[in-house]
Amino acid sequence: MADKFLARDANFAEKVRGSFARQGFMRHMGAELTGVSVGASEIRVAFREALNQQHGYFHGGVAGAIADSAAGYAAFSLTPPGSAVLTVEYKLNLVAPAQGEMLIARGSVIRAGRTLIIAKADVFAARGGAETLCGTLLSTIMVLPATESRAEG
Amino acid sequence: MADKFLARDANFAEKVRGSFARQGFMRHMGAELTGVSVGASEIRVAFREALNQQHGYFHGGVAGAIADSAAGYAAFSLTPPGSAVLTVEYKLNLVAPAQGEMLIARGSVIRAGRTLIIAKADVFAARGGAETLCGTLLSTIMVLPATESRAEG
Amino acid sequence: MADKFLARDANFAEKVRGSFARQGFMRHMGAELTGVSVGASEIRVAFREALNQQHGYFHGGVAGAIADSAAGYAAFSLTPPGSAVLTVEYKLNLVAPAQGEMLIARGSVIRAGRTLIIAKADVFAARGGAETLCGTLLSTIMVLPATESRAEG
Amino acid sequence: MADKFLARDANFAEKVRGSFARQGFMRHMGAELTGVSVGASEIRVAFREALNQQHGYFHGGVAGAIADSAAGYAAFSLTPPGSAVLTVEYKLNLVAPAQGEMLIARGSVIRAGRTLIIAKADVFAARGGAETLCGTLLSTIMVLPATESRAEG
Repeated sequence: MADKFLARDANFAEKVRGSFARQGFMRHMGAELTGVSVGASEIRVAFREALNQQHGYFHGGVAGAIADSAAGYAAFSLTPPGSAVLTVEYKLNLVAPAQGEMLIARGSVIRAGRTLIIAKADVFAARGGAETLCGTLLSTIMVLPATESRAEG
Repeated sequence: MADKFLARDANFAEKVRGSFARQGFMRHMGAELTGVSVGASEIRVAFREALNQQHGYFHGGVAGAIADSAAGYAAFSLTPPGSAVLTVEYKLNLVAPAQGEMLIARGSVIRAGRTLIIAKADVFAARGGAETLCGTLLSTIMVLPATESRAEG
Repeated sequence: MADKFLARDANFAEKVRGSFARQGFMRHMGAELTGVSVGASEIRVAFREALNQQHGYFHGGVAGAIADSAAGYAAFSLTPPGSAVLTVEYKLNLVAPAQGEMLIARGSVIRAGRTLIIAKADVFAARGGAETLCGTLLSTIMVLPATESRAEG
Repeated sequence: MADKFLARDANFAEKVRGSFARQGFMRHMGAELTGVSVGASEIRVAFREALNQQHGYFHGGVAGAIADSAAGYAAFSLTPPGSAVLTVEYKLNLVAPAQGEMLIARGSVIRAGRTLIIAKADVFAARGGAETLCGTLLSTIMVLPATESRAEG
């Protein structure tokens, strides 16, 4: 479904990894960036009690946070050097309990405009070697050019 | 805008507080349930580096997690004894950087059906005594009757 | 809930009415623009069989179309002369059957940035003098400055 | 991405076509149901001035209406005899101008639960033999069992 994309920044993978490393919240959750390619990214987080909800599964907030980030980093892989990205909005459908040893979000860009990028992310729960789709996210990401990065609200 | 609602569970506040206390993820973020009423709830979380994104503000995932929970607990306050609630989906617009000492999500029910409850939550960043709207969420919550709680995916 | 806004175009009402009049689809549905103010708009459409779904109520597509337009025109009322607006995305919750003689969408802006405007719209079904909320929409609208109008995809 | 699904109603195609035929609004727009299979559907509408917006393209409301219906009928193809479906909510990203001779919505089910079905639809504009993705929709559909059809709000 996703079109083929061209990287406009030769250092896109390094740029994405550097940004991820500065996110205290991803570290606090124990999330890892396990894949970056042109227009796509993957984030994984292992289960532990600190990430659960009232029934003992992964909290929906964990699924939302890694899915939003996976979509955002898929978008960021496509932007020119010096620009920043900002999540404008996302919608997340939680389609099955996030139950398993590992939660995996795979983000990919659907359409990349100059100012806005539309991306998606699917979230899978891995359990005993099998993966189950437990959520799907659709998001709108804004590209802030080098000169205005951090200016826009 | 929200209609007036009637509690169908005399112990609704206790029920909501008990469920919140079992969410490891809320504790891990340092979030607190600071208000529960019939059809509404409030969750607060203080800023610290463990909750930031790459520019030093609150991570959008924190805003999403407390907004989703605030909407979900607003819904849970209205359900009969023994039932459970499940977030089916939500949409979050991030309208301004989440910059401040405290992030506050205020959830309220828009319409309560027998099976589905529609709720909203606004997220504010508190900074030097002033609050700024930084996100708004709209969500669909499913009510699982006492007999089926935990059965449905 | 909505902040107070200032019009940046003295002819905002005329501009909104002119744009609405050029929408063949609104005319085809029989929808009318019944209100425009700074940051808000109202659209109404009377029931007829041509607008129904399989159970005889207003089709959800009618509710979606007038709600999207009401939010978009609320945004358009705030933009500078010469600029255009484009709906980037919207989410619509249908909370009750759209059953009645008239469907009314009331749009209002939540936050107006330079490039993006976040707006909402509530849809009411009017029946025998009473109005029932039947849908609520949250949308993201892009502002295209005078020089680039119609260029961006 | 979509799982394989099994039809629970041998007359699923006839059921879907019968429901579509009762939608006055689809007829009013000139939309046609051009495909039904187990867990999927396709709807097409030809361009004419009655369906345009202020810049002369298809109105976003047309894209939204056929995308919502394509997702809904994809879901309806999977439900047991006698049950009805109801769109609870949808989110639509409009990713490119809907410019062309024909608008085509292709809906497919992502996950089918007993009570809720999650479906998607992509909308393409056909122009001179080529199709361009112009929108993508993600929706939540409620299944009303035979005995309660039309009871729930």
